[in-house]
Formats: sequence, structure tokens, C-alpha cells
Amino acid sequence: MAVYTQVSPEALDSHLAQYDLGDVTSFKGIAGGVENSNYLLGTTTSTYILTLYEARVAATDLPFFIGLMDHLAGAGFPCPTPVRMRNGEALGELCGRPAAIVSFLDGMEVERADAEHCQMAGATMAKLHAAGQGFEIERVNALAPHGWPALIDGNIDQADSVEAGMRSLIESAKAQTDTNWPSDLPRGVIHADMFKDNVFFLDGHLSGVIDFYFACNDFLAYDIAVAINAWCFDERLEFKADLCAAFVAGYESQRALSANERAALPILTKGAALRFLLTRLNDWLNVPKGALVVPHDPTAFSTRLRFFMDNDAELAKAIERPTA
Amino acid sequence: MAVYTQVSPEALDSHLAQYDLGDVTSFKGIAGGVENSNYLLGTTTSTYILTLYEARVAATDLPFFIGLMDHLAGAGFPCPTPVRMRNGEALGELCGRPAAIVSFLDGMEVERADAEHCQMAGATMAKLHAAGQGFEIERVNALAPHGWPALIDGNIDQADSVEAGMRSLIESAKAQTDTNWPSDLPRGVIHADMFKDNVFFLDGHLSGVIDFYFACNDFLAYDIAVAINAWCFDERLEFKADLCAAFVAGYESQRALSANERAALPILTKGAALRFLLTRLNDWLNVPKGALVVPHDPTAFSTRLRFFMDNDAELAKAIERPTA
Repeated sequence: MAVYTQVSPEALDSHLAQYDLGDVTSFKGIAGGVENSNYLLGTTTSTYILTLYEARVAATDLPFFIGLMDHLAGAGFPCPTPVRMRNGEALGELCGRPAAIVSFLDGMEVERADAEHCQMAGATMAKLHAAGQGFEIERVNALAPHGWPALIDGNIDQADSVEAGMRSLIESAKAQTDTNWPSDLPRGVIHADMFKDNVFFLDGHLSGVIDFYFACNDFLAYDIAVAINAWCFDERLEFKADLCAAFVAGYESQRALSANERAALPILTKGAALRFLLTRLNDWLNVPKGALVVPHDPTAFSTRLRFFMDNDAELAKAIERPTA
Repeated sequence: MAVYTQVSPEALDSHLAQYDLGDVTSFKGIAGGVENSNYLLGTTTSTYILTLYEARVAATDLPFFIGLMDHLAGAGFPCPTPVRMRNGEALGELCGRPAAIVSFLDGMEVERADAEHCQMAGATMAKLHAAGQGFEIERVNALAPHGWPALIDGNIDQADSVEAGMRSLIESAKAQTDTNWPSDLPRGVIHADMFKDNVFFLDGHLSGVIDFYFACNDFLAYDIAVAINAWCFDERLEFKADLCAAFVAGYESQRALSANERAALPILTKGAALRFLLTRLNDWLNVPKGALVVPHDPTAFSTRLRFFMDNDAELAKAIERPTA
């Protein structure tokens, strides 16, 4: 939670001169967002989010992220819509950083999701997968299995210092995913980070999805595997089969899973848990001096990974096709 | 810049059940605010700021701060208005902290104030001094001269490690204020921290003043001395006599200074510079481990203090009564 780049009122004014957004009525840095600096921008026309992309986001990926939000919003998917400058571009530069302005999305995350929230989140993910069709830019998932060895090599020697047994857990999971990772599932644009803090609800309905900065092209079912990690454990990190069933049922209300996708979910959920464990472990062991952000606890994902390693049958039962 | 206390959606909902604010439409932590956790709260009725008071703010001072905003807003002064719960209280408790909700104030700070901004800020300060009359709670200025020895004793031995000559500068200024601090000037409620980031402008007009958490009872002219430090130096920390003259003229458009007040401004500006130098030096030398905030540079105020120590005549000239 931080604003890394301070935007002065003068710099804001000259930046906004490129847009038709009306006059500024308020401007506040938002706490939250590990990767970027975000400001809430009120103008005489509406409310917007101004984002400055910091070094951790590759500038070459920005046309994908901005273009994707534009494409999804155009297809009717509820997500922030990038605002174009008068020159037609949505990506500008402010304070030496790439910068974009998107529409503000009403709503709030839920902390404790119930089955109904999970059902709505699942249905919305399927709509995202449908809306992403036809988007022409591609982005490789840098945090897919091919990206894990670099994260493992740099940190595995210290894993047991974070939690006893974490090293062998990572090695076992890596061996299983090396052997069993699928290769022929339906692919498309996925969100890849649809955690609860990226999904807003309003008046009991899902109002939108934010934060597309891990979006990429990968197996659609891998997105579901990430969401099962994110949505289907309670605050004591116990797996909730009913929430998992609700998420998958919600997804299938919009798009039926193939038998291959369903069969792959147990290995994909292990891989998703491993991916978040590895990035959290890396952040935990490499906190930069003067960091404004407290790193997330990696053991929240070693616990999930351990569950998936030991409970293939329980997961399979939670996601089995309902008998009509 | 930080949110120290994370408020969950569930905790927010049960807190808001005590108010009549409508349904929540958005809730975002605000970066900024050294002392407290601040959230921007959108509801179906309006936009508000929710503040959780962290340990650094004395809970016993909160009735003064909240009551003062209520009193000033009631007197027509442009500042956040505390929102009362259905039980009539404006101060509640959330996540184990004292908490209050105030109205959201449109507008933005200016980075480079011109004479017109300074004139408006001065006039608004005089209006604040007038509006504060009749407020019944009192609060001693903990950072008046009687509070300086504790700050000096703890830090003076390390002052020269921050900047060569800072120790003797502090000692000289302390000796002068000990001898020459006034005792019989008009008193009242002062803001005591009316820096540029606490004053909002909108459409070329001053839209309001925020952050009353240093407000107290003291000499009205001391508030002007703080503001001369805050508003009347450029980005290279050079004193701008025209801005100083504009601020004082703006103030006097609403309330004429007495001859004693005018004569006291040179020593009061030294005292105000010393006060901010001492608290910044203390924060600089005592950054808590894991701090989410980068401390302000104390040399920004040793530079100001040095100017005031060496330029009594230049300041006196800038604030002399205009000949009619």
C-alpha cells in the first residue's frame, strides 16, 4: 500500500490538458496496489483512477493490459474502461512514468465470500473468458511453470527458514506439475489474479473486476484453479468444498468445462498454489530496503498447497459434474 | 503515507449501521496522513472521509478536534463537518480505535502558491480565528516553547550529524525565544499546521481547510508565523517577501493586527521554524523499525530558521502596515 510517485497539482494539470475530462475537483493517492501508484481523480464529469506504472510493470506489457480493459469493457464486461486522450491514445506519460486513466468502478470487495458470492464470481470469470475472445494482443504467462525454476533456484535454500518442510513441499509439487501439467486444454485470455480484493460487489451483485496486471494467455481452467485458491478457503485456511462447488457451478452456468479441463483441475490448483507460494516466498526473502509494502505471508499458500497435495479426492468431489 | 489499520468490509458495515449514511458504494484507503488511517467512503448519499485515530493521537484530545470541526463548520467556516451517529455522538470506535466520519471537501492543494493564493489563505486564517471564538473546549499547544526542551534534550547531540551547524543554530534560536517570546498577545483557537497540503483550492478559490489535529489555543499571531514558514518560501527555500506581504494583507482584510502582534512576528516566525525543525529532527533520528512513512527532511526548516535569524529587517519590511 503506497504511492511511489508523488504527482504535483501542476504536473496533473498539464497531463489532464491532453484529455476532455472537465476540471479537477479532487485528487487523492490511494493506499493499496503493490505494483503501481494509484490516485483517485474527481472531475466535473466523473470519478476516475489515474495509475502510474512503476518499474515492476514491464512497459512493453502495457499495451496488452490497457488494450485488454478496453476490449473487455467494449464487449460489455464490467471492468474499468481506459479513457483516451484527444490524440486517441489511452497510454500517456506522467512524472516520467507510463500513465493511464480508467473509469472508477463502484463496489467493494467481500472479506468472507459465501456460496452466492462464489457463484457470481465463477459466472463472471466465464464471461471474462468469453469477452476476451477476439482480443488480438498476446501475452505469455510469465508465472506459468516455465517461470518457476528461476523463482525456486533463488529462494529454495531459505524456504525451511520461513516454515519447516516448505522446501520438500515445493520440490514435491514441482515434480508433480513437471510430470502432469496438461498441454491441450482450451486457451484464451485469463485474469490470472482474480482474488477477492479484485472483485467488487454492490447491493448484493457483482459490480466489476479490477487489476488486470497479471492477465495473460493461458489455459482457461488455470484461471479457475487460481480462483479456487483465492475464494474457497476460510479464514483458518480450511478448504470449503461448498464454495468450490459454487464457483465451478457459477462458471459452468456460462461455459461448460470439458472432461479434460475438469480432470486437470487437481494438478492446476496445485500449480496455482505453488505459483503464489513462490512469488510470496521471493518477496518475503527479498524485501527491498525502505520498502513501503509489507510482503504477504507465504505460508498462506504453503498451507493451501499442502491441502491440494494431500486431497485430490476431496477436490475432485467438490468439482464433479452435478448429476442432472 | 499509509493505512495503518485495515478495515474489513464486515467491520465497516457494522460500524456504519450506527449512522444514516445510506449504502456503501466504494471504500478506499487513502495514502497520506502521518498520524491516522484515512479512508474515502462513498455512499448512496455522498462522499465522506473515515478516520481511525492511531496511537500517536491522544484519545483525550479527540473531543477537542472533532468538536472544533463541528463548531467551525457550524460557524460557516469551510472545513470537514463531523457526521453524527444516531446516538448523537460524532466519535465512535472501529477496529479498536477511536473513529470519526467527516464530510468530503472538494479541492486540491497548490504546490506553488502565488500571491493570490497567499492572500486567500491569509484571509481564511483570519476567518478561522473569528469562527473559533466561543468554542468551549481548550487545548494547550504541546509544541509551544514549553514543549521544546524535551525535543532538544533528546536530539541535540546528534543534530550536527544531520547538518553541520544545526546544533548551534538550535541553541541560538532557543536562547532568543527564551528571552523574547511574547506573553500578552491576543489568543484563541489556532490551526497551528496550516501548510499548503492542508488548504484546498477549487476553480481559483479557496475551497476549504483540513487536518485540525494540531489545533490548539495559542497566540493568533503564532498561526500566522507558522503560515509564513509554510507559504512564503519557494522551492529553493528562498524567502518570498511578496508572498509574505500578500498573506498578511489577506489576514488583515478580515482582522487587523495590533502593533504588538506585528512587532512579535519576527520572534514568532523563528519559534515556528524551530518547532518544525525540532519535530522533524526528532522524527528523522527516531524512525521506527518497519515505518511506512519516510520522515520529512529537517534541513528544510533549519534553512528557514537560519533565514529568520539573520533577516529580522527583511521580514519586518515584508509585513509592515501598508501606508494608506
